[in-house]
Amino acid sequence: MVDCIIIGSGFAGISAALTLQANGKSFQIFGTKNLSSKIEKAERIHNYPALADISGKDLCAALSSQLEKANIEITQERVSGVYELKEKFGVATQEGSYYESKTVIFACGVESVKQIDGETDFVGRGVSYCATCDGFLYKNKTIAVLCTTKRLEHEIAHLAHFAAKIYLIPMYKNVEVDFSNVEILQKMPAKIVGEKRVEKLSFVDKTSENGVKELPVDGVFVLRESIAPSILMNGLQTDGAHIEVSRNTETNIKGCFAAGDITGRPYQYAKAAGEGNVAAHAVTAYLSALKAVTV
Amino acid sequence: MVDCIIIGSGFAGISAALTLQANGKSFQIFGTKNLSSKIEKAERIHNYPALADISGKDLCAALSSQLEKANIEITQERVSGVYELKEKFGVATQEGSYYESKTVIFACGVESVKQIDGETDFVGRGVSYCATCDGFLYKNKTIAVLCTTKRLEHEIAHLAHFAAKIYLIPMYKNVEVDFSNVEILQKMPAKIVGEKRVEKLSFVDKTSENGVKELPVDGVFVLRESIAPSILMNGLQTDGAHIEVSRNTETNIKGCFAAGDITGRPYQYAKAAGEGNVAAHAVTAYLSALKAVTV
Repeated sequence: MVDCIIIGSGFAGISAALTLQANGKSFQIFGTKNLSSKIEKAERIHNYPALADISGKDLCAALSSQLEKANIEITQERVSGVYELKEKFGVATQEGSYYESKTVIFACGVESVKQIDGETDFVGRGVSYCATCDGFLYKNKTIAVLCTTKRLEHEIAHLAHFAAKIYLIPMYKNVEVDFSNVEILQKMPAKIVGEKRVEKLSFVDKTSENGVKELPVDGVFVLRESIAPSILMNGLQTDGAHIEVSRNTETNIKGCFAAGDITGRPYQYAKAAGEGNVAAHAVTAYLSALKAVTV
Repeated sequence: MVDCIIIGSGFAGISAALTLQANGKSFQIFGTKNLSSKIEKAERIHNYPALADISGKDLCAALSSQLEKANIEITQERVSGVYELKEKFGVATQEGSYYESKTVIFACGVESVKQIDGETDFVGRGVSYCATCDGFLYKNKTIAVLCTTKRLEHEIAHLAHFAAKIYLIPMYKNVEVDFSNVEILQKMPAKIVGEKRVEKLSFVDKTSENGVKELPVDGVFVLRESIAPSILMNGLQTDGAHIEVSRNTETNIKGCFAAGDITGRPYQYAKAAGEGNVAAHAVTAYLSALKAVTV
């Protein structure tokens, strides 16, 4: 079992990893090979101390090479759940693996994609974030799939294999999906509606009598790069899209920390790097205290 | 009047300056040309994101060149006092200048030099931090000078011009002071003693009867690179050597912020850069609110 699992490979996560390594702690960092689509897409960064006017691509390359030199490898799996156990945490991934660690740092960033009205209300009752985990539950059923990025388009194939009918609502350009049972809708739903479970998607429609058009579905898959922490982990205190933390990056759950954009504005690289550093030190202090109690 | 005065040219101060510039705010940054003796002396830094294994000297050079590119000039004066005025601040320097700003960011670092017992009790009553400000007050008197760095050795000449007798206690090697009225003591005092004003310095001395040796003096000059913020500014809430701040870097005084080592551990570059960034954003938000009220 590692000392710490870091969720996210942006500035906060990398900063935490480098400092945990400096502090002699073992860790596993989850993310993507390209590290952060936010950094990658940034045109030029003017205010990151000691790197004048650097492009997002060059910054990503610098971070990648630093990780390589430090022998830090990114685990390229998407976290699907974080579970608080006795003095440790369990982390499950959408790829079907399970890991354990003494502490967790959420450094997963803030997705700029807004949640759909009703989305969180129906998690586990018709709303799913993981095609490979839950796809089989919708055999011969009708589902809607909100896909936020082309990178997750391959998951639609998996769903198309099970479902009778899929309404695909893509939130990106150049859709390349071609299945006879997939119908593409170029309109965002306003709401997910149902009683006990998801029953339909509701759209604004000015041509209809009540201004609303409804689409009956058995389930809704929301395919995002990352899942909101409040959904990943039960009981984690959040304030809207952000995890609430102390100045020391502690969340309300002991042994669980958060750093970077996910803790709130400003959404800046220096701030994220700083918080990742602080989180790594907080983890180190927490582990020392844990050891002192155990011994 | 500038929007912000930044006190300190280490990572926190530079980060704040770069971000204030990005936010279109005017500012003045006080510090030294070599930016930070802490960074300068660092052997290698392993955990600053995007700059793998860099030496302190190279890091300083990178920061200097970034400031030059951004047309940011450091005001090379040492701040001797910060005064809270009506919706603005006054900043006096040991070089005798006076500046005003709408906000202040303390980014002055933490000097690792311990204060002498009794030091803060006698500030303005025999303890001084500024040779050029207060030297003339000790004409024909006996004073002690605690000098923490060779860089401030030149101030001793100024004091030797006025005082009848100087006990110089240097806290560095290779002392190059040669005045007939300056006697060098290679021992740290334990305490500054007096009733209403400074009367003597007390040293531990095992050879004497009561274990103490006392040296009568009229005043004590403590020459440090920077003065503790609690002495610089009346009413600033501190916790030992650190300024107390909110997660947003606000101090207890409105319009006054703090970032970097001065806000507490970890003493790390990434943390300092992060807080400088957050402070700049907090200043920007504060100025907007100020404007909204004024208009």
